[in-house]
Amino acid sequence: MKKNTRIVLALDETDKKKALKVVNDVREHIDAVKINWPLVLSAGPEMITELSKMTDVICDFKVADIPNTVRLIVEGAVSRGASAVIVHAFTGEDSLKAAVGAAGKAEIYAVTEMSHPGGATFTAKHAEEMAVIGVKCGVAGFIAPATRPERIADIRRIIGARKILSPGVGAQGGSASAAISAGADHVIVGRAIYSSQDPKRTASEIENEIRAVL
Amino acid sequence: MKKNTRIVLALDETDKKKALKVVNDVREHIDAVKINWPLVLSAGPEMITELSKMTDVICDFKVADIPNTVRLIVEGAVSRGASAVIVHAFTGEDSLKAAVGAAGKAEIYAVTEMSHPGGATFTAKHAEEMAVIGVKCGVAGFIAPATRPERIADIRRIIGARKILSPGVGAQGGSASAAISAGADHVIVGRAIYSSQDPKRTASEIENEIRAVL
Repeated sequence: MKKNTRIVLALDETDKKKALKVVNDVREHIDAVKINWPLVLSAGPEMITELSKMTDVICDFKVADIPNTVRLIVEGAVSRGASAVIVHAFTGEDSLKAAVGAAGKAEIYAVTEMSHPGGATFTAKHAEEMAVIGVKCGVAGFIAPATRPERIADIRRIIGARKILSPGVGAQGGSASAAISAGADHVIVGRAIYSSQDPKRTASEIENEIRAVL
Repeated sequence: MKKNTRIVLALDETDKKKALKVVNDVREHIDAVKINWPLVLSAGPEMITELSKMTDVICDFKVADIPNTVRLIVEGAVSRGASAVIVHAFTGEDSLKAAVGAAGKAEIYAVTEMSHPGGATFTAKHAEEMAVIGVKCGVAGFIAPATRPERIADIRRIIGARKILSPGVGAQGGSASAAISAGADHVIVGRAIYSSQDPKRTASEIENEIRAVL
């Protein structure tokens, strides 16, 4: 993924037409688009390919399976045009290594903790351990919440120069400039852009906010 | 899902034609077919609908996301024809409740531990806690490994009359009759059936093996 505007659009939209339109509107202001399974279930895996013609596609599939299934999912996503796949780290070393091995030139990002309330029950307890395992397995980067910039800095100390993508900017309350200042490489913005009256203008404003702190 | 032959076919096959053929061959010997994301990525989400015309479909999507995304994935699978969806329990109560709420009359099965070596690092440590949370959230049942029948009995003590599906029968070394004897409601069999020279005969033999211990 290029590092230009530092913005990843979370395309949490299941209507194919609307999804394609918003990406087309904002494509010059984003480095990539992040899609999840609901869009695949509604519009089919062909959407990965279609979107990949406009921008880099990160498949936020939160893959959490045994090594062989992880391999098949990552291979399937990459062969459809994905530039990156997001996987869970709690499945352990063998599953993470299978993801990295299957990705080829595509990137694997690991989730070490989740930002919803239920994330506190199990994932938050093991976040640092999972980050260490991710580094050992050769992932390209990690996901860390923009809503808690101090956690971005914590993860940064463990992972060195690997990348950090930060979700939670905008509708969930996180600030793009604070996340980037805390060490994030990219911020992930969803509703704030795709539900905006003027997605292109909103994306451009966030781009300017980020440029001001670089 | 009906409880007749007690066999669920794990359709870990990404070739659409082969997948449909084997299900058609063995349909009278199975209670359901279990599919995973690799088949959706290769053959499209329409496969859920197509298979649901032949037998019950369990979407083994190992859903592990924030509540709203969990809801969208479960709704998407059920609207395509799934009778059940498998989700991870490690995402905590709110995500599990979202799955159960979105399923309607379809069933939610929760994963509490994973059988691959990496499963020992995090999931096995919290399996009992996750089973308790699953019961509290109203899941229909749980996944417990046929390769370790003592774990089926452990989970049974926590979950009461809820269902247990046991993967790992056949190629991975688990015995169908031992799993059923230990308290499993259904065994999940993959390669032993779909890679068999005669899938129908193999399925029938496993069915007989199970009947002998019922």
